[in-house]
Amino acid sequence: MLIQRLTIIGLGLIGGSLARALKRAGQCGEVIGCGRNTANLQLGVELGVIDRYTQHPAEAVLGADMVVVAVPLGTMATIFSAIRDSLSPHAIITDVGSAKATVVEDARQQLGNHVSRFVPGHPIAGTEKTGVAASYAELFENRRVILTPLSDTDRQATNTVKTMWTYAGAAVEELSVEHHDEVLAATSHLPHVLAYTLVDTLAKLEDRTEIFRFAAGGFRDFTRIAGSDPTMWHDICLANQEAILKMIKQFSRELDQLAEAISRSDSEYLYQVFTRAKTARDKFAG
Amino acid sequence: MLIQRLTIIGLGLIGGSLARALKRAGQCGEVIGCGRNTANLQLGVELGVIDRYTQHPAEAVLGADMVVVAVPLGTMATIFSAIRDSLSPHAIITDVGSAKATVVEDARQQLGNHVSRFVPGHPIAGTEKTGVAASYAELFENRRVILTPLSDTDRQATNTVKTMWTYAGAAVEELSVEHHDEVLAATSHLPHVLAYTLVDTLAKLEDRTEIFRFAAGGFRDFTRIAGSDPTMWHDICLANQEAILKMIKQFSRELDQLAEAISRSDSEYLYQVFTRAKTARDKFAG
Repeated sequence: MLIQRLTIIGLGLIGGSLARALKRAGQCGEVIGCGRNTANLQLGVELGVIDRYTQHPAEAVLGADMVVVAVPLGTMATIFSAIRDSLSPHAIITDVGSAKATVVEDARQQLGNHVSRFVPGHPIAGTEKTGVAASYAELFENRRVILTPLSDTDRQATNTVKTMWTYAGAAVEELSVEHHDEVLAATSHLPHVLAYTLVDTLAKLEDRTEIFRFAAGGFRDFTRIAGSDPTMWHDICLANQEAILKMIKQFSRELDQLAEAISRSDSEYLYQVFTRAKTARDKFAG
Repeated sequence: MLIQRLTIIGLGLIGGSLARALKRAGQCGEVIGCGRNTANLQLGVELGVIDRYTQHPAEAVLGADMVVVAVPLGTMATIFSAIRDSLSPHAIITDVGSAKATVVEDARQQLGNHVSRFVPGHPIAGTEKTGVAASYAELFENRRVILTPLSDTDRQATNTVKTMWTYAGAAVEELSVEHHDEVLAATSHLPHVLAYTLVDTLAKLEDRTEIFRFAAGGFRDFTRIAGSDPTMWHDICLANQEAILKMIKQFSRELDQLAEAISRSDSEYLYQVFTRAKTARDKFAG
């Protein structure tokens, strides 16, 4: 068994699904949940996702050999600070944050000696749903998990976290912190910003045009991610500020150029953009 | 039986699905397909979607009591002009174009006396797939079809087209041409423009960052519509130019403001936008 005692701090879709997957794989003994919402923790016990819970992070990590911090990015520092003095010397700590630079910084500042056993991680999985009720053991199957270990990260700790995610069905890769944050700004953070902005723009028009009544399937798919948790995305926007702003800028420039092409009826330009995009989309969508 | 002889000009996803739905409902006799791609037309016969085909629009409409023009917007005028002199006096003509002002203009200029029996229509349905192979009888079930009849459109013709779509399972509504084009610019045309622009922006970064390899489910949903037919969307952008440019402008202004809020770490602004968007999205998604 890979993990004797697993502590999940932040028992949401990701934390809950990981606990389920590891239990199903028979790779963890006791699972302790920790969070602020008692009803959610209680539900975690009832669903068999966790064995017991506490609302105190310091208590939750006692005797744990693996601690998964699955809270919004803005809460990482507080959690790291709260658990530092209760961690077992052999405990491995990892997180699931969608941006890595700030988490690494928080860990350096708050985890003291334990920082070398902190393995920054990010499962590229999830839906717009939240809470342990939405969790399921198959969430990570055939998904990628990116680890961004630092030069001073304990190699064995990294390997154990890698093995853990492999048991959950994921394909694990290592990237540098900077590369991770740049790639995710493009493929995840920018799309979320666009979806939120689109729905908000339309919501402001809603009164006079009944816009949403005439929205079709494509629109539903396109805006699904605008149903995501506002706190999580607020934190991501501030944590990965620079890379996100850079992507918004690049996108805006392209959008301006497309608008200009539409206004001058530039057929060739439109065909080029749409065809290039369709080709890229068809290629990566398989 | 509502329709004795149905002619579908442009046997793609929409035209093919309508023919299937009406056949299944037992509401049409012979179905004649017309298009430029012989293999696609032949497949239509093999799949039982149409009974026979011709590549000549003028020939296709002979003796038809219902003519559905399901070609890209840029081809409407050519088709109207080609069929005008072969239409039966009692024939009803309708289209399925995603923007209505230019189609109405084309019909006025090309259909001669038949213009009063032309009912502009738009089924709010479809996927990013194309061709008769992708068509299915259930495509319009519980979808909306918008008709935009003019003051001089024959009321009986409008009612027959309405009944036709009802037999295909759709809920039919009437809007003015202007209202239709404004609403669709917001809920369909702008999202497509954004999806195409996003994928094209990322495709340009692909070489150095392997971006698409790390794209998750949300990104796939978000960019699905960028797999749509470039010709169709080129035509829509030029046909609904003004309304689309207006929506791009509004969206760009909102995106600029959000970028500014991110750069000054304005938490309150971000929470407001994301929460308002999530609320709107959750509400219309049911």
